[in-house]
Amino acid sequence: MRIVVLGAGSWGSTFAALLAENGHIVTLVGRDRDQAREIAETGRNPRYLRQVDLAQVSACIYADAPVSDAELVVVAVPSRAFREVVTKVPDAMPVLSLVKGLDPASGDRLSKVVGPRPVAVLSGPNHAEEIAERLPAAAVIASEDEELAVRMQEAVMSPRFRVYVNTDLVGVELCAAAKNVIALAAGVADGIGIGANAKAAVMTRGLAEMSRLGAAAGARTETFAGLAGMGDLIVTCWSHWSRNRRAGELIACGYSPREAEREIATAVEGLSTAPVLRDFGRRLGIELPITDAVCELLAGGSVREAAVAMMERRPTAEYEVEAAAP
Amino acid sequence: MRIVVLGAGSWGSTFAALLAENGHIVTLVGRDRDQAREIAETGRNPRYLRQVDLAQVSACIYADAPVSDAELVVVAVPSRAFREVVTKVPDAMPVLSLVKGLDPASGDRLSKVVGPRPVAVLSGPNHAEEIAERLPAAAVIASEDEELAVRMQEAVMSPRFRVYVNTDLVGVELCAAAKNVIALAAGVADGIGIGANAKAAVMTRGLAEMSRLGAAAGARTETFAGLAGMGDLIVTCWSHWSRNRRAGELIACGYSPREAEREIATAVEGLSTAPVLRDFGRRLGIELPITDAVCELLAGGSVREAAVAMMERRPTAEYEVEAAAP
Repeated sequence: MRIVVLGAGSWGSTFAALLAENGHIVTLVGRDRDQAREIAETGRNPRYLRQVDLAQVSACIYADAPVSDAELVVVAVPSRAFREVVTKVPDAMPVLSLVKGLDPASGDRLSKVVGPRPVAVLSGPNHAEEIAERLPAAAVIASEDEELAVRMQEAVMSPRFRVYVNTDLVGVELCAAAKNVIALAAGVADGIGIGANAKAAVMTRGLAEMSRLGAAAGARTETFAGLAGMGDLIVTCWSHWSRNRRAGELIACGYSPREAEREIATAVEGLSTAPVLRDFGRRLGIELPITDAVCELLAGGSVREAAVAMMERRPTAEYEVEAAAP
Repeated sequence: MRIVVLGAGSWGSTFAALLAENGHIVTLVGRDRDQAREIAETGRNPRYLRQVDLAQVSACIYADAPVSDAELVVVAVPSRAFREVVTKVPDAMPVLSLVKGLDPASGDRLSKVVGPRPVAVLSGPNHAEEIAERLPAAAVIASEDEELAVRMQEAVMSPRFRVYVNTDLVGVELCAAAKNVIALAAGVADGIGIGANAKAAVMTRGLAEMSRLGAAAGARTETFAGLAGMGDLIVTCWSHWSRNRRAGELIACGYSPREAEREIATAVEGLSTAPVLRDFGRRLGIELPITDAVCELLAGGSVREAAVAMMERRPTAEYEVEAAAP
């Protein structure tokens, strides 16, 4: 298959190498001409994960991307750049999105921006840093078109990267977006040193919050208990590779969101997603107390107030499962 | 309330202090006369968590335990000692169990051993080491007798220890037992250095395995997504305080189960629970692939085979949620 990967960050580069290993003809597309030249010359991305072997991957800038000749376009850019990049893809071209966020312009799921092109989404506990080290991982590919999802599964699957098909596109996209916001909260828990017991409680209530939102949006509950939900949430809240967790930790230690992103030196999706997710929930009439607390913190609220809000409010799902605390 | 806490380990001692802080008259009961004397003289447990203030707690050995005068007996002993300790409690005395395991003699849930006494179970992400440091935590109390559960919630609840009532006794007990077995598997993942992506995938499939077992035993699915399920699983698989996670890690590094338990120097519940849980699943006709892999490893199987079994087999629930991988 001829595949174009748009976005030459750490995940785009690692994913391009995975695809090339599977025998596909892969072009990795970035904004920076020097970077593209260096990938072509050295087989390594000079800026991200130099251990990833790109010798079998072509590289170019967006203006030169061979999109019309491709059979599949993979998108691996920050969510705020997603719309701009995707709307230039030819109309009938299948798109596989690796992006975990929401569209800031419409406030909606990213796959809605892709239409009328056929679209699938890949998500799961997939820190690029580990996959670059050839450690095994598993993911789901979701699409409303199951046949398309199965075709993409066949293209992506490998002994070190296991892929399951899920037809719940809405659920997988909402998991991918919301887990970064919960990871900011988990990072705050780390930053204030509240302990693993309380952090696990925040994560549990975070997944309940995500599931409630998903149910209201028409997603399936099982998706939230699967790799794209619980699996990705765990790794994003706990791994030292997690940029969203780290951003929460830095903010709890007094950094502004902007300073935290500068320190981490790459896009932190949860920072852009949090207010969009809050509005998404409001439109559906769903309370998202942890997301609300994160938004207040990002808007300049105090860490102490956010922590109290995260710990003290009791969401509806907890009432449904367990009787009220006195 | 006059409360007797049977079991003077780290959780029993910490819980006794929590109860005393709530104004109850608490006696902590252990096997060791010297330990009891030292607690009485110094207000500290010489063997576990010296930071816990036991100045307001009486201490004695089992032979002197004022069980007949009590209004509530709390049990905090290893599961293998549970039956022996509980059968000596007077018949009408309410029992609150903090024990996370199964009864090795009957192969059944521990609460079944308590009857005809009224019984409730407390569980959740509650590493004693953190609660001893006065960090906040949350738990559930489950009983088939909701009125009893609410009475115990009122007795235990405090600003730093939040308690929710759950009527799904079966679910909470199975969560508490099974999560230690999954944590052994997560520890193996740590020990072989397979990465956080794969570890999160094992945990996700572990919770699915626990939920399937629970559903077959008559538990509610929501319990497995709550504090006693996902919450406790996360902290047991990830916290550096977790003895079960640590035991799995040591076994992956070549220790025998017995050597691992000696190194950790306290009961590691998952080691006793794993084979009992496997048999529990078999009686219900439920496949527990991760539990099976752990059992084979504990019976002397190779780490490599266990790791492959944990990673490669695909449980039924994953098929139900997502289509089969090719």
